[in-house]
Amino acid sequence: MINSDNDRLTSWNNGLTKQSIIDFLNSTVEDGSNYIKPEDRIATFDNDGTLWVEQPIPVQADFIFQALLKSSLKDPSLANQQPYKAIIEKDNKYLSLILEQQPDAIMDLERAIARQWSGTTPNEFEYEVKKFLTTAKHLKFNVNYTDMIYKPMLELFDLLKSYKYRIFICSGGGRDFMRVIAEETWGIHKENVIGTAPEYEYQNGTLKRTKKIIGGISLGPGKVEHIFASTGRLPVIAAGNADGDIEMLDSAKYKLLLSHDDHEREYAYNDGAQKALNNAKDKDYTVISIKNDWKKIF
Amino acid sequence: MINSDNDRLTSWNNGLTKQSIIDFLNSTVEDGSNYIKPEDRIATFDNDGTLWVEQPIPVQADFIFQALLKSSLKDPSLANQQPYKAIIEKDNKYLSLILEQQPDAIMDLERAIARQWSGTTPNEFEYEVKKFLTTAKHLKFNVNYTDMIYKPMLELFDLLKSYKYRIFICSGGGRDFMRVIAEETWGIHKENVIGTAPEYEYQNGTLKRTKKIIGGISLGPGKVEHIFASTGRLPVIAAGNADGDIEMLDSAKYKLLLSHDDHEREYAYNDGAQKALNNAKDKDYTVISIKNDWKKIF
Repeated sequence: MINSDNDRLTSWNNGLTKQSIIDFLNSTVEDGSNYIKPEDRIATFDNDGTLWVEQPIPVQADFIFQALLKSSLKDPSLANQQPYKAIIEKDNKYLSLILEQQPDAIMDLERAIARQWSGTTPNEFEYEVKKFLTTAKHLKFNVNYTDMIYKPMLELFDLLKSYKYRIFICSGGGRDFMRVIAEETWGIHKENVIGTAPEYEYQNGTLKRTKKIIGGISLGPGKVEHIFASTGRLPVIAAGNADGDIEMLDSAKYKLLLSHDDHEREYAYNDGAQKALNNAKDKDYTVISIKNDWKKIF
Repeated sequence: MINSDNDRLTSWNNGLTKQSIIDFLNSTVEDGSNYIKPEDRIATFDNDGTLWVEQPIPVQADFIFQALLKSSLKDPSLANQQPYKAIIEKDNKYLSLILEQQPDAIMDLERAIARQWSGTTPNEFEYEVKKFLTTAKHLKFNVNYTDMIYKPMLELFDLLKSYKYRIFICSGGGRDFMRVIAEETWGIHKENVIGTAPEYEYQNGTLKRTKKIIGGISLGPGKVEHIFASTGRLPVIAAGNADGDIEMLDSAKYKLLLSHDDHEREYAYNDGAQKALNNAKDKDYTVISIKNDWKKIF
């Protein structure tokens, strides 16, 4: 068992972290107190910063900002409103309020998102996302975003599947954005993607986005609520990298916290993850160090 | 192919309906204009009246009415309020308003449901449902409700799975009630069960139901909205038996409408299904006649 598991995690360095994952998985399929019935074997993963690079800004923030920028060029009356103004002026101080989930900034952003995409059909939105993903490049690495998915995590997906775990992605980001890439890049069906989502209305044979968000933001306790609503369960295994993942991690039996500590090959930062990192020992999080645990990142 | 498909549908009579299902499925996996990529192969089924008997009242209505009756015995002040009063007095006139989705009656029912189950944890609710299902008997057949699931439909599930379709149940009824039986009786994971659902709040490590319904009632256009929200797709195949299924059927490529026309072995009725049955020809619904198409029902 352990040999073939090692074969699957080829981008991982041998060590305590890798061994801990393999040991836990083994214990859930063998007789004993850790045994998990096959139907209960679900694993949930955060997306931004857990499955792909989230610095200098999360991929979806880039997508949204680019779309809003285009709209402000078409409709100059927007240029004096937030967040358009900050996007046009590259006002990083304001933009970081959004990224830090400051309520007023989020309210402005949500209004702009509603303006931008309400009335959109699923196909129209998918087309926009695909176009963005084939053209946008990462600032530091100058590659497409989908080339910045962490290879070790994809190997972990394969390992989990070999143990008959069903994998769900649960992100604070937009569900429908992620669903566009889920099958091709993660090998995970769209229905296994959970995230913040707009309401749709079905009228005259067509689904169209409304201005509303349905079921709240999928962050913090919202992640657990979204996971239960989608799956009817809490996860056996959960993986995240930020404070917004704490409740999801705590709801799982086995908790993986990714630490961004590799300035050279990726980024080194703990903004927005300090609480999670501080809690790691008390709460029995298995911390994955990108620097030490990953032989290859991409 | 067709021989082994026949072997799977053993409770179905040979004839146009059975052949139509097999032919359609074959056409979706063979080269040609009907071909469906594996990731797109999803099928959605209504529950009450499509997967099990819904007469004289739907199973969940029995569950809810029994629970509310018990509460009214504990708290006599409820006895003069609706729907408690009607349940105590077996006032079928009022109760049928609920079953026909009359807005005022539904509002009373929703208030009673919120009173009954808000604050409940998933485990507590599951325990109640299991207890009900092991004790309650059907009025006419005097068997447990789970013994009244249509065998031909379970065979169709197996056939669909052999064509690599992923099956979702999409009911107007309560998602969490159905999830209790999904794995054991349908062989379908909880996450593939879609329905009307309460909001949950995650606090202090515990999920508890609130008084709110999330995402609206899963009926009519709401079924399509729920299916898209859960799966990111519209169905290739949809099966229903009532007017509340029309939008779901119309959103699918292949539409199965179950007709309850067997007074002897089940029930013969078309209340709440007249529009669907009238539309069948124009809208190319494949009508399944229980009387003619099913050799065995249970």
